Amino acid sequence: MPNLSISLAERSYDVIVEQGSLSLSGQLIQKRSLTGKIAIISDSNTAPLYSQQLISSLESAGYSSSLHIFEAGEKSKNLSSVEDIANQMVENGHDRSSFVIALGGGVVGDMAGFIASIYYRGIPFVQIPTTIVSQVDSSVGGKTAVDLAAGKNLIGIFHQPQLVIIDPDCLQSLPAALIREGMAEMVKHAALRDPSMLRRLSAMGVAINEDAGFQISYLPELPQLLADNIAIKAYFVEKDERETLGLRAFLNLGHTIGHGIEASVPFGSIMHGAAVALGLRAALYLSRKHSDMSAADEAAIIDCLRSIQLPLQLPDFVNPELALARCASDKKFKAGAIRFVLLRALGQPELVGSLTKEDLRDAISDLTEPCA
Amino acid sequence: MPNLSISLAERSYDVIVEQGSLSLSGQLIQKRSLTGKIAIISDSNTAPLYSQQLISSLESAGYSSSLHIFEAGEKSKNLSSVEDIANQMVENGHDRSSFVIALGGGVVGDMAGFIASIYYRGIPFVQIPTTIVSQVDSSVGGKTAVDLAAGKNLIGIFHQPQLVIIDPDCLQSLPAALIREGMAEMVKHAALRDPSMLRRLSAMGVAINEDAGFQISYLPELPQLLADNIAIKAYFVEKDERETLGLRAFLNLGHTIGHGIEASVPFGSIMHGAAVALGLRAALYLSRKHSDMSAADEAAIIDCLRSIQLPLQLPDFVNPELALARCASDKKFKAGAIRFVLLRALGQPELVGSLTKEDLRDAISDLTEPCA
Repeated sequence: MPNLSISLAERSYDVIVEQGSLSLSGQLIQKRSLTGKIAIISDSNTAPLYSQQLISSLESAGYSSSLHIFEAGEKSKNLSSVEDIANQMVENGHDRSSFVIALGGGVVGDMAGFIASIYYRGIPFVQIPTTIVSQVDSSVGGKTAVDLAAGKNLIGIFHQPQLVIIDPDCLQSLPAALIREGMAEMVKHAALRDPSMLRRLSAMGVAINEDAGFQISYLPELPQLLADNIAIKAYFVEKDERETLGLRAFLNLGHTIGHGIEASVPFGSIMHGAAVALGLRAALYLSRKHSDMSAADEAAIIDCLRSIQLPLQLPDFVNPELALARCASDKKFKAGAIRFVLLRALGQPELVGSLTKEDLRDAISDLTEPCA
Repeated sequence: MPNLSISLAERSYDVIVEQGSLSLSGQLIQKRSLTGKIAIISDSNTAPLYSQQLISSLESAGYSSSLHIFEAGEKSKNLSSVEDIANQMVENGHDRSSFVIALGGGVVGDMAGFIASIYYRGIPFVQIPTTIVSQVDSSVGGKTAVDLAAGKNLIGIFHQPQLVIIDPDCLQSLPAALIREGMAEMVKHAALRDPSMLRRLSAMGVAINEDAGFQISYLPELPQLLADNIAIKAYFVEKDERETLGLRAFLNLGHTIGHGIEASVPFGSIMHGAAVALGLRAALYLSRKHSDMSAADEAAIIDCLRSIQLPLQLPDFVNPELALARCASDKKFKAGAIRFVLLRALGQPELVGSLTKEDLRDAISDLTEPCA
């Protein structure tokens, strides 16, 4: 069983990656000496699939729990849902001796982690992520968040979980499109730190069945690949827990322009992972022009994204100028330049402070052409 | 000028107690190397009195700021107000480089501190408390909070300010009743750690003018008394920042039964400080019975509360049984006993775990009789 440990002094924790671990949650949590009642926070997509399995396992280990379900989707990720769930938790008798389990994808993890961080001024929480994005990315690192009307993820806190339980079997319930988009973040991690992983990801991409998604039984390498990928995220989190040193910022590779594209269209019309794939292509374009990246390195990443069938060309419904405007407000351009993550080569990111709005415009314009 | 420093490793900060310091805020903040735009959060009572003075001082020091006012009162201290103000802050261009100033009493400090702790995952904040309770108690120690429908202060976080600026001149605008209730917390601090301060507080209590409140010009000792009193709070905060060691819990002296009384009647029908005075009398009763407190020590505190004209007998509209029920839910009585702060003697608190519901009932029942 591949296992990781995130080293953050007294906030260190384990990430368990194991098939069937969902059903072992009770004993895995017990081993970490977590006591008290449990508030399971989940959404309307995930709870019907996995909550019974989780609750049974917790009961076997002697835990009592209450289940708090909100309507699936980013639109629920706000302070009003936080208030509802917190009130429910009080009514169910949870106090500072309780702890939270987040069961679901990125939205669940972000919001449940935030609730844990502010309930009775902070109680522990355990992440049980059930999608690729949440397994390899958002469940590790302690960033919690909810949205404001004025923008996404503007409210939150750094609150590390006590334990992350990743069961690759959960990925079998995902539709192909969600697998593909999750893999965009895996490609980003590989590009930042482990070029040899690109081939493994391509092989995995090819294995996605349009109708059946991931057939885990045919993918014995998957748990190890997830673990190796999470280890990359962990590396940057350990070096720069609160994103103050510029190292964790490398994880924004592909995300500046990706976010701009995503924010330029009505929410949900382009998937986050698809926008990240486009953002990665744009970052590669800029890395070729303003850093030392070779054509071969660029091609390696593009080929991998292609194997996963992620989009590489800007859809017609995206307005390039609007996407540019949404990349960064004008005040982010200090003396006309913005901070941006480029790759000198595969596995060698750099943070540059010299790109201009015109440079970003070029890169987005290039996205409107088919990829070579 | 009396000045204090709260020593909490990298979260240490100064508390400045000085007449006229409100008008010096700009330069005092500048000396702490705080940069960026400022979001001033205040309420509809305080902003008309002091915001212009503050803004002018900030402008003189080269700061730009926006002012965010909510309706005064505990009923505003909720997540919905947090959301409103945070959205306003985004619209005013505040990001992770901004910081917050809390200008007002306890409600303002609790809520503004909470907003600062979760805005862009945490930005710095400065406390400028303008009431006695907030000056000697809530502005120091980093407890931030908002209420849920299900209970007070159930949502929050530990987030220490960067600086606390206390201008005793602000107390001149307070009605006598607010001064008296604030002084209940000062008596509690003195009882916990500095018996000689009780005399100074009695003298101060006598100086409260029913119509004019505090006439600061006749009270040259006030700034030093405030500073000495805050130093007691600081002592417990420094020893036990996150209330995990049982030392900060001493600050709950008088609050278990005080809270019960407060929570048993419609909010606002009894002032917090008045409930604390009653809670203190009850704690003294229990300290006499279950600890070593002498009659003389008990009388010293009672006399002080009397000089300040704080209530010592339970008002008719409080139902003793309901107050008892609100002191602590049944689950707080572990094996029939609850944790409670007693005084062995003046300045010698102890946390006991042996009091029963019957003991608390006795103490509340004693409150229905006139105080000896």
